[in-house]
Amino acid sequence: MNKRDPRVQLLLTGNEIMSGDTVDSNSAMIAQRLAEVGLTVYRKVTVGDDTSLLQAELLDMTSNADIVIINGGLGPTIDDLTAAVLAAAAGVPLAEHPQAVAHLQAWCGRRNLPLDAANRKQALLPAGADIIANPIGSAVGFELGIGQCRVLCTPGVPGELAAMLDGIVADLANTLASPTRRRILRLQTFGLGESSAQQMISDTIPDWPDEVELGFRAGAPQMEIKLTIADAAAIPLQQQCRARLEALFGDHIIGEGNTQLAERVLELLRERGHTLTVAESCTGGLIASMLTRIPGSSDGFHAGFVTYANHIKTAVLGVSETTLANHGAVSEEVVLEMATGALARASADYAIAVSGIAGPEGGTEDKPVGTVWLAWGSAGALRTSCLCWPVERSLFQTMIAAAGLDMIRRTLLGVASEPRYFSQRRVR
Amino acid sequence: MNKRDPRVQLLLTGNEIMSGDTVDSNSAMIAQRLAEVGLTVYRKVTVGDDTSLLQAELLDMTSNADIVIINGGLGPTIDDLTAAVLAAAAGVPLAEHPQAVAHLQAWCGRRNLPLDAANRKQALLPAGADIIANPIGSAVGFELGIGQCRVLCTPGVPGELAAMLDGIVADLANTLASPTRRRILRLQTFGLGESSAQQMISDTIPDWPDEVELGFRAGAPQMEIKLTIADAAAIPLQQQCRARLEALFGDHIIGEGNTQLAERVLELLRERGHTLTVAESCTGGLIASMLTRIPGSSDGFHAGFVTYANHIKTAVLGVSETTLANHGAVSEEVVLEMATGALARASADYAIAVSGIAGPEGGTEDKPVGTVWLAWGSAGALRTSCLCWPVERSLFQTMIAAAGLDMIRRTLLGVASEPRYFSQRRVR
Repeated sequence: MNKRDPRVQLLLTGNEIMSGDTVDSNSAMIAQRLAEVGLTVYRKVTVGDDTSLLQAELLDMTSNADIVIINGGLGPTIDDLTAAVLAAAAGVPLAEHPQAVAHLQAWCGRRNLPLDAANRKQALLPAGADIIANPIGSAVGFELGIGQCRVLCTPGVPGELAAMLDGIVADLANTLASPTRRRILRLQTFGLGESSAQQMISDTIPDWPDEVELGFRAGAPQMEIKLTIADAAAIPLQQQCRARLEALFGDHIIGEGNTQLAERVLELLRERGHTLTVAESCTGGLIASMLTRIPGSSDGFHAGFVTYANHIKTAVLGVSETTLANHGAVSEEVVLEMATGALARASADYAIAVSGIAGPEGGTEDKPVGTVWLAWGSAGALRTSCLCWPVERSLFQTMIAAAGLDMIRRTLLGVASEPRYFSQRRVR
Repeated sequence: MNKRDPRVQLLLTGNEIMSGDTVDSNSAMIAQRLAEVGLTVYRKVTVGDDTSLLQAELLDMTSNADIVIINGGLGPTIDDLTAAVLAAAAGVPLAEHPQAVAHLQAWCGRRNLPLDAANRKQALLPAGADIIANPIGSAVGFELGIGQCRVLCTPGVPGELAAMLDGIVADLANTLASPTRRRILRLQTFGLGESSAQQMISDTIPDWPDEVELGFRAGAPQMEIKLTIADAAAIPLQQQCRARLEALFGDHIIGEGNTQLAERVLELLRERGHTLTVAESCTGGLIASMLTRIPGSSDGFHAGFVTYANHIKTAVLGVSETTLANHGAVSEEVVLEMATGALARASADYAIAVSGIAGPEGGTEDKPVGTVWLAWGSAGALRTSCLCWPVERSLFQTMIAAAGLDMIRRTLLGVASEPRYFSQRRVR
């Protein structure tokens, strides 16, 4: 039995990636999914939609790698070249694949679209290729062997690629010579920075075991901490490390896997049979949108109010004109009245209210861009805080919306201590 | 004078890029900056921090390209290999570069840090290399010729790369044989698919000129059409093509450059001194969020209502319980009452109201997942349509939010004809 791990290379195609119009996140997705089963991508090459360049790279790759994954170029347009390039490299003709035609017919049928020539081009595959099902899009994936190398062709649309990777990863895992697989435990956090988390770990856990690889993925709003082991024997060590991280970061850990803040909040609400409402000024509907993106959100979320203008805060939420005149829209008094108004109007158990200065304009010396008042909690038990988070407008909205959800998460869990970002960002 | 454009390749190094923990946006930045002066990156290769892989790629690249830009591997740690790899490829030793040492001393001095051995490693460069100044970070960039090829080494930290690229781009522009530069015209569209747009163009404009490169970037919700010319002499042709696309796609074109639908709607509202309100059920705050992401949105957008539950539609917007009972929440009658209620409560000139089934649950035989009723317009002049857009939940929300904004854009512009997606998606 060949114990050598298969050598995997990626070939990415697309003028929009070469020109920088699109940032390629597909190759990161592929690498991460393959890593789950212990496969490492050791080289990737990107070229534009150019037949001779693609051809040369593919021939070179198939003579050096065991598995080549091509991403992109499956679409219906003339610059989608993957099928033709693979057919030429394999020395086979292009032929209409019946399964691909059936897929296209069903896909167009569901949309009441005619199957036109451009779409039909997506069924023209290298003779002998096997179909890789595309549960979402019109273009099927396909696989063909060249010499000892398996070539898998995948779509450039990220959602379609993601859906297709489930099957590909399971299939490749089955054929692996060495059955050990990397086990990745992901912890989602909010309110920790990558460098400070790293520093805290090296200060507090100097004896971190070599068997547990530690990784970070800083995103907005969440940061992922990744614990990877290469061998099942290290599972107890992985769990030990997890426990030590939980002791260290405590309630900054939202959950496992891909858990999103909004998802966790909805889950906690559902367990308690409670509902949440939101009164948003500077986040402008983003908190509501984060909640309603989650399937089944209607259990815990019934109503949101986007009160962007002052007179709307009064007309819709009953914020007093005197309060607005005396304290300004970005004030503790106003977010308290917004929260109270929203709780009453939505008959909800919990509320988040937000009013701040998202920028780039609108800041003053007293309240610079990035200043925001938050109120959260239940009727009679509302709490407030004023933070300053001076970053670009849409990042500000994302972080503040997440902070609001995080405070409700903490309230529902009964966490008494304040999050780290409060001590770093608090103004008053 | 050599009229051939220099052939540029990128070599990216970094284990975190290969593993997918970091998404590479540096190569997009480099490609976009080089495109400004007419340089095209035609190939890029990414490998991990591995001496022999880097060595092999670099030797191959220097014999095929005129310019190679290496990104990453300049830092102080043992896995930063770029200087050593370049020295070996050029057949020169590593030597401490006095200018790099001076830069490091100044950099550490400003931070009250000692210049330790790890940092000092960053001054160890291939003998004969020229320094590329790093205005921000500790690691200088450097350049060395191998044969006829110029190799430029740049840092992986995006901010440092950005700062260094100003100098690099200006320098490369000076040495370019042909001073012509590519001119890119971008048109943003909504409601066109890539394949149908391609089909319409090849059916209608068979004599499309070779000088104007046609590109598409299908995003959600918008699709970009890109017209690129390599020579200023082709500007009239580019404008002709634009005019023909405008005749062909008409009011499906939202604007130029990066214009977003919400931005265009806010611009049209501002010109007229009018305001828009939204009453959202299945889009759950996304329309409000798309609007308020745009700086200055408070001019045209004052209030939004997320009425996710039926009793909230009644309590907050005044939708009659009888209407809800007789027609259901996803009905023409309900979206009309939602829009009317929102218009009155926000004292707005225009409204969008949306009620539909985002899925994955909640569909019925009569109203399957993807069914949505839209109402839009002004008081006394509301219009409605029922579409079916059966895609994944968050994509559904994105497309329907955009469709609502698009109908307001069309209303504000006085467009009488219906968009193409109505005829394809309309249920009733």
